[in-house]
Amino acid sequence: VVDIDALRIDKDGKRATKEPVTEEIPLTLYLNNKELLTLLCSPADLKELSIGFLYSSGLIRTLQDIERVIVDTRNWASYVELKEKNDPSPLMFKRLYTSGCGRGTLFYNALDHMNREKITSSFRVNWRKLLEMVDSFQKKSLIFKKTGGIHSAALSDGENIIVFKEDIGRHNAVDKVAGEALMKGIAMGNSIVLTSGRISSEIVFKTQKMGSPILISRSAPTDQAQKLAEACDMTLVGFARGQRMNVYAGRHRIG
Amino acid sequence: VVDIDALRIDKDGKRATKEPVTEEIPLTLYLNNKELLTLLCSPADLKELSIGFLYSSGLIRTLQDIERVIVDTRNWASYVELKEKNDPSPLMFKRLYTSGCGRGTLFYNALDHMNREKITSSFRVNWRKLLEMVDSFQKKSLIFKKTGGIHSAALSDGENIIVFKEDIGRHNAVDKVAGEALMKGIAMGNSIVLTSGRISSEIVFKTQKMGSPILISRSAPTDQAQKLAEACDMTLVGFARGQRMNVYAGRHRIG
Repeated sequence: VVDIDALRIDKDGKRATKEPVTEEIPLTLYLNNKELLTLLCSPADLKELSIGFLYSSGLIRTLQDIERVIVDTRNWASYVELKEKNDPSPLMFKRLYTSGCGRGTLFYNALDHMNREKITSSFRVNWRKLLEMVDSFQKKSLIFKKTGGIHSAALSDGENIIVFKEDIGRHNAVDKVAGEALMKGIAMGNSIVLTSGRISSEIVFKTQKMGSPILISRSAPTDQAQKLAEACDMTLVGFARGQRMNVYAGRHRIG
Repeated sequence: VVDIDALRIDKDGKRATKEPVTEEIPLTLYLNNKELLTLLCSPADLKELSIGFLYSSGLIRTLQDIERVIVDTRNWASYVELKEKNDPSPLMFKRLYTSGCGRGTLFYNALDHMNREKITSSFRVNWRKLLEMVDSFQKKSLIFKKTGGIHSAALSDGENIIVFKEDIGRHNAVDKVAGEALMKGIAMGNSIVLTSGRISSEIVFKTQKMGSPILISRSAPTDQAQKLAEACDMTLVGFARGQRMNVYAGRHRIG
């Protein structure tokens, strides 16, 4: 959070103020010393972001695929060296490059793919417990409280929030959670992914990649997100706020 | 908007409902018959989106660069044929591919670039007028009211909202506005861009590309958005809601 000069105008007139705003930096990601892409993101947890992004993009399968990660916060660069020195296939790159926010080729045969990779976890949670969790998730975001300009994502074990991350991008926030979960070796079969943002198809893909059976948000899902969640038997909960929620898929996990 | 089956849970218990959710489709964009990328977007105004995206990505400079646009809503494909049949430079493609939501290489020398392309418009608006405009902008989004899952963007001439678009992606919504403005030949020097979403650097870039001197949102800006707006002398207004607003740059245009 940085304070910037602003002119506040309201019914009492105009006055100069300092307004807290959230920071945005361009992190350029290098894979085996080759420039991959630049993420516009919040400046914290850049190692988690680098690893989580590669993971949820399918460029690495486990933490063991990585030799080392060096984050250079002077030049906003992250160098990831893989054990495998061959470049990822051009197809992989293509898929990666076209998969930003609301931009992806992931849809090709997406439903087929999800059908083949069904989530088998028999994890169940009580709905009141879930709402408590969403409530404490929301209270955690101090940057949002200050600036109103940030998304958050978290991982819960069904009792507590065990990973919590913030980013200006809702995709990045989920990737940061994935990165930390991977780094800490957290078993995902009995976990819940929470997000502050709307649930589009790409957020469902990321959650499925992480292996988490439950995805929950206080915001709305899209129709494609619902279809994909149903296809892989993920539990998808939207509009979880106050004393209510809508379960769009996988209702057998809600007790 | 489609109605999908959901389980509503609240203090009165569980019951099956139909819940309205917003649609998400994968639109694959072809440029001179070559696949460019796939945008995940809302299914309306796909011609506007195609043209606006190419424009705000710098792949076309005017509407005259385009020979024809054919939108195939059966296969969700958009074929744009340019008068110039040579492919855009690889550099152009690279920049394009890395510029999704929160993902862009646009930052390289971005401040320099903005400094060179200063907005010279002497357009001014009264702050009360601006707040009225934000109010009527918000009331226009019927899909948001129904589903809570969509962004909107608009163009105003200072008196009325003359273009209004919705999309699941905040970038797409702005691109749809740019596309329609271009198709209608609207002069942008005395215009205002309104967005429902947070203002990150890429939204400032798109607004500058459109040539609009004022960008306003009821949400928060990032620090980079403020720096870029200041560099090109764009008027940037955030938190415009109720009877207040914060002017982060270009305050000389607010009367």
